Amino acid sequence: MIILGIDPGSRITGYGLVEQRGNRLLHIDNGAITTRRGDDLALRLKTIHDELCRVIERYAPVALAVEQIFVAKNALSALKLGHARGVALLAGVNAGLPIAEYTALQVKGAVVGYGRASKDQVQQMVRTLMKLPEIAQEDASDALAVAICHAHSHGLSQRLQSAVRPRPHP
Amino acid sequence: MIILGIDPGSRITGYGLVEQRGNRLLHIDNGAITTRRGDDLALRLKTIHDELCRVIERYAPVALAVEQIFVAKNALSALKLGHARGVALLAGVNAGLPIAEYTALQVKGAVVGYGRASKDQVQQMVRTLMKLPEIAQEDASDALAVAICHAHSHGLSQRLQSAVRPRPHP
Repeated sequence: MIILGIDPGSRITGYGLVEQRGNRLLHIDNGAITTRRGDDLALRLKTIHDELCRVIERYAPVALAVEQIFVAKNALSALKLGHARGVALLAGVNAGLPIAEYTALQVKGAVVGYGRASKDQVQQMVRTLMKLPEIAQEDASDALAVAICHAHSHGLSQRLQSAVRPRPHP
Repeated sequence: MIILGIDPGSRITGYGLVEQRGNRLLHIDNGAITTRRGDDLALRLKTIHDELCRVIERYAPVALAVEQIFVAKNALSALKLGHARGVALLAGVNAGLPIAEYTALQVKGAVVGYGRASKDQVQQMVRTLMKLPEIAQEDASDALAVAICHAHSHGLSQRLQSAVRPRPHP
């Protein structure tokens, strides 16, 4: 079961793919979609959307996980982020993927075990969990983190379901 | 030459189509894409994108015009607006349409002749120019306004080009 995590941004959109095999979590791929500064907004959005469609087609993930946004530096940066996030979510929903959103607190909690962990701690832990030779590009690492968070949350909900399922009497 | 104006919003996205025939400007269609409040964000974005793709396919406009955003009430509303605006621009760029952005000042100036005109004045003027039986739905009217603005600006640049074109000596 492959999960796609995305960290959208108008300049750089990170993506990360993890596979849940039983209790194990494997790294599949990660990368960063960089848009050209000179390109106009619409072209940059097309690049983000097209590249994500390609990633989805290549790896056929079963779910898309993305960080939930509550705050932004200011309205203009929120607007820019919104554009990128909108086309990223569209790529997922057009491929029929369920979309899960997690708060930064949930992501950090799932990856480091501590919701107030620093950015460095999260990146180091992503590297360790994914057995990467070095820390992934920042946005790609964040994308892997939210994918790991979804895998944990999904695994937990499955275990909870099987725990409450009535067992046949002996 | 048909121009598509769009006024994106996460709940309601207005669209308006005007045709420039010589010096005349004709109303083709206008409407509002309303997303269901209960639907999650990704589904709402899909609705906006799909409906706009349908409008583009039906009327084959040659350009997309949209209002340029500088301010927003707050970061959260900017983020929501950004999502809708992102997928709206994507629908245009995927159809190969050039995208033109105009400030509110430019739109009001083009429609009413006065950049500080009120919302009511703009709506009344859109109704008059388009010969509509009544004022269009608010977002659809705003979408028509930006399409009218593009038609004016485009017509002006064409007239300027022909004015500076060297004429053959008699």
